[in-house]
Amino acid sequence: MQHVLKTQQFSREWLKDFFWRTTELKRVFETSTNGRARLRASLKGRLMHSVFCEASTRTRFSFESAAHHLGMDIVATENGSEFSSLIKGESIEHMIEVLCRYHPDVIILRHKEEGVAERVASIASRYHISVINGGDGAGQHPTQALLDVYTINSCIGSVDGITVVVGGDLTYGRTAKSLVYLLSKFERVRFIFISPPQLRMDAGVVSHLLERDIPFREVSVENGTEISEACREANVVYWTRTQSERITDSVKMMSIAKSAWLYQITVEHANLLGDRGAILLHPLPINGEVENAVDHISSAKYFEQAGNGLFVRMALLQEILQA
Amino acid sequence: MQHVLKTQQFSREWLKDFFWRTTELKRVFETSTNGRARLRASLKGRLMHSVFCEASTRTRFSFESAAHHLGMDIVATENGSEFSSLIKGESIEHMIEVLCRYHPDVIILRHKEEGVAERVASIASRYHISVINGGDGAGQHPTQALLDVYTINSCIGSVDGITVVVGGDLTYGRTAKSLVYLLSKFERVRFIFISPPQLRMDAGVVSHLLERDIPFREVSVENGTEISEACREANVVYWTRTQSERITDSVKMMSIAKSAWLYQITVEHANLLGDRGAILLHPLPINGEVENAVDHISSAKYFEQAGNGLFVRMALLQEILQA
Amino acid sequence: MQHVLKTQQFSREWLKDFFWRTTELKRVFETSTNGRARLRASLKGRLMHSVFCEASTRTRFSFESAAHHLGMDIVATENGSEFSSLIKGESIEHMIEVLCRYHPDVIILRHKEEGVAERVASIASRYHISVINGGDGAGQHPTQALLDVYTINSCIGSVDGITVVVGGDLTYGRTAKSLVYLLSKFERVRFIFISPPQLRMDAGVVSHLLERDIPFREVSVENGTEISEACREANVVYWTRTQSERITDSVKMMSIAKSAWLYQITVEHANLLGDRGAILLHPLPINGEVENAVDHISSAKYFEQAGNGLFVRMALLQEILQA
Repeated sequence: MQHVLKTQQFSREWLKDFFWRTTELKRVFETSTNGRARLRASLKGRLMHSVFCEASTRTRFSFESAAHHLGMDIVATENGSEFSSLIKGESIEHMIEVLCRYHPDVIILRHKEEGVAERVASIASRYHISVINGGDGAGQHPTQALLDVYTINSCIGSVDGITVVVGGDLTYGRTAKSLVYLLSKFERVRFIFISPPQLRMDAGVVSHLLERDIPFREVSVENGTEISEACREANVVYWTRTQSERITDSVKMMSIAKSAWLYQITVEHANLLGDRGAILLHPLPINGEVENAVDHISSAKYFEQAGNGLFVRMALLQEILQA
Repeated sequence: MQHVLKTQQFSREWLKDFFWRTTELKRVFETSTNGRARLRASLKGRLMHSVFCEASTRTRFSFESAAHHLGMDIVATENGSEFSSLIKGESIEHMIEVLCRYHPDVIILRHKEEGVAERVASIASRYHISVINGGDGAGQHPTQALLDVYTINSCIGSVDGITVVVGGDLTYGRTAKSLVYLLSKFERVRFIFISPPQLRMDAGVVSHLLERDIPFREVSVENGTEISEACREANVVYWTRTQSERITDSVKMMSIAKSAWLYQITVEHANLLGDRGAILLHPLPINGEVENAVDHISSAKYFEQAGNGLFVRMALLQEILQA
Repeated sequence: MQHVLKTQQFSREWLKDFFWRTTELKRVFETSTNGRARLRASLKGRLMHSVFCEASTRTRFSFESAAHHLGMDIVATENGSEFSSLIKGESIEHMIEVLCRYHPDVIILRHKEEGVAERVASIASRYHISVINGGDGAGQHPTQALLDVYTINSCIGSVDGITVVVGGDLTYGRTAKSLVYLLSKFERVRFIFISPPQLRMDAGVVSHLLERDIPFREVSVENGTEISEACREANVVYWTRTQSERITDSVKMMSIAKSAWLYQITVEHANLLGDRGAILLHPLPINGEVENAVDHISSAKYFEQAGNGLFVRMALLQEILQA
């Protein structure tokens, strides 16, 4: 594997193997100072270019912390679209062509334009430099999907045969879409999609599931009991915030905001999940769509999930750069 | 000591000991290449998260340079409030909960909201991660106060028994307030506060001094001789700029600006201090309230003071992370 | 050599020697893992302050990648003018005075104000700290000029005796001006300047050439054949974009934009150059003034040129810091 561009590139077998390696790496990191020092030696002297052209703390800090824990060096921009040569009219292709000439080992790219990661990777390949897609607009965010499924696998013990509630903004949220694509590679997974009618699951995902005969149903909340009912069936509830920065129609935004209270995960929901050994995930940031007090309920695994992002990215960097 | 959150946490005894260690560290750093290399090995492999949600070069460059001189790695944002997930509505608590999962050893936080450092520290404690308050709004800036008092101690030879003129913006300037709190722990310190009537010393500080029977007087400049008179009594003059970005009332701002010339430290003042072995400090940046030519007068110690920030922060990082 | 401030400081002899060292360094870096590791050890433990107060990816990433490939540490701001203490009214002199106290080994400064690098260097000299001018407004960009001439020397085999077409925005483009100054130190170099009438070569450069009896002519494009004719004479075509961010007169800008198509380098031009062993350079970013398809023609050397920026900067850092 040279690049990480989209979830479609991962096979079920590769994932199982990768999850095993991630867990092993996490164990080494967490249990011994020696192990940590060994990890810090593993990619010593390698250089990461961390190019973020859209807002992100979580993803950028996660990649860069992962790089440091493996001994790598970093050159970064947190504000690539405004302060780089992109504002002088340069194409992203030219920018990458130049970065490759500075001899990084890997480029992490977040960009607002869908599909940009693949265009960039075809250039980097000529230089034998790896590209990791750190999120391309409404497109993909493959390392997020990896850590989501890794967390499911590690909390539930398996991915096959589970029922997953995916809720919130299913039109603009790239993490929800990437997750469904990735989970659809496993066996006997069922989906329940819960969203405001204005934010129903993306048509591409729906036809993907129909083609493969993967069972799913769509639920719209009317009297407030629908989420509880879904929680009683779920092994995993994956909730997401409304991507208001991508919704330009203000009338639409207003009507979504009005019904937002109907789509909030409450302590009651979290407890329903906890009673059955099920878990609540969220890609974060949370902006009101999960009640504050849920943070302290044991079924809420979103901080653990975020933390797994560190280890998944360390394992990916090792896989790509030690090849 | 796990966290550095506010000046109140330092005792007089701890300070004396800490100043001694800082001076020792400075000596090692400045006198031998070997010593420098030893320092660079002392926190090798440790990770700092440098999270600045408000403008700052001095403090951020100082912390990050300190970290590098001790061999640490850094992941940083210089623009946390605009380009992080905080603009997506995330709470600072969630942001920190996630950062802690990326296994830094210490988080430096500057934030515009007063009290945020303590809320953040209570989360980080659960992860055994240290937090250093790099300035929280109009609240505290404890490492600045440490370097201020360290500079007084090293230039004057002692802190007990001194007379300190504190001038400029005493309402909004957090460094002036933190300094007075810290100095009030020493013996027989007297204060003279000089400010425009609109920017008098904060009421909390005043009652703190009254309760402890610490002598002070407030001076308003009328004919221009008042600052000179104070200089004739002072061991230390600590001058500050008007925090115009925190003053939202434009009529008030205008009337302050009109009298600004009355509150300028001149070459004459600096010479008066120099003649008596007294010193002029300023937390910087200077924006006209100290005459340019003062830079070259030997009583002006504000660059030395800023430079001490490096060593104070190195000593703090060692103390916190080697515990 | 302690500082790198302007192209005038380089002699022809120093340049020849420096180009030789750069080529040697490039060879070591590109041919062996051992060599790379040796380079990474060469400036281990040295600290770079990378202070960019104007937009730049290329230059900043190039300097910081160079630093990492030599084992250095970095503290950086990519947005110095907006998020540093400069917005609080501080002078650049005070800012640098403070940075020097944090004990960097070298400060890279990009700033919008012409002449700032020299003012800053006179301060840094007192601290035995080096300053490299990373571009000062419409002033100089000496490391760009170095990599431009290095690329000419390495592609053509020599600099003496060549004919150089310099085209595009010759009024506001600092790279074109710096290049001509530097090339004028070599023997028997001839220039052809091609620009819209509103963007003719800077008067200072013109009188510099007249004083030294260096042959040049100015060409304005009328029927579109003029660029082809120049390509038939040239060894090097150095093309530049219109610095629209520096042109405040909107009527002028409009009339420039209208004739922009006349000043575009096309595949035909690039082929004309290729047939004669001549090359096309551009400091990048390209914003339409070179046809896209030119990227794939072998006479187009601008990516190689950009890549040489890495090695030229590595060689400079070694020269300055190992002295």
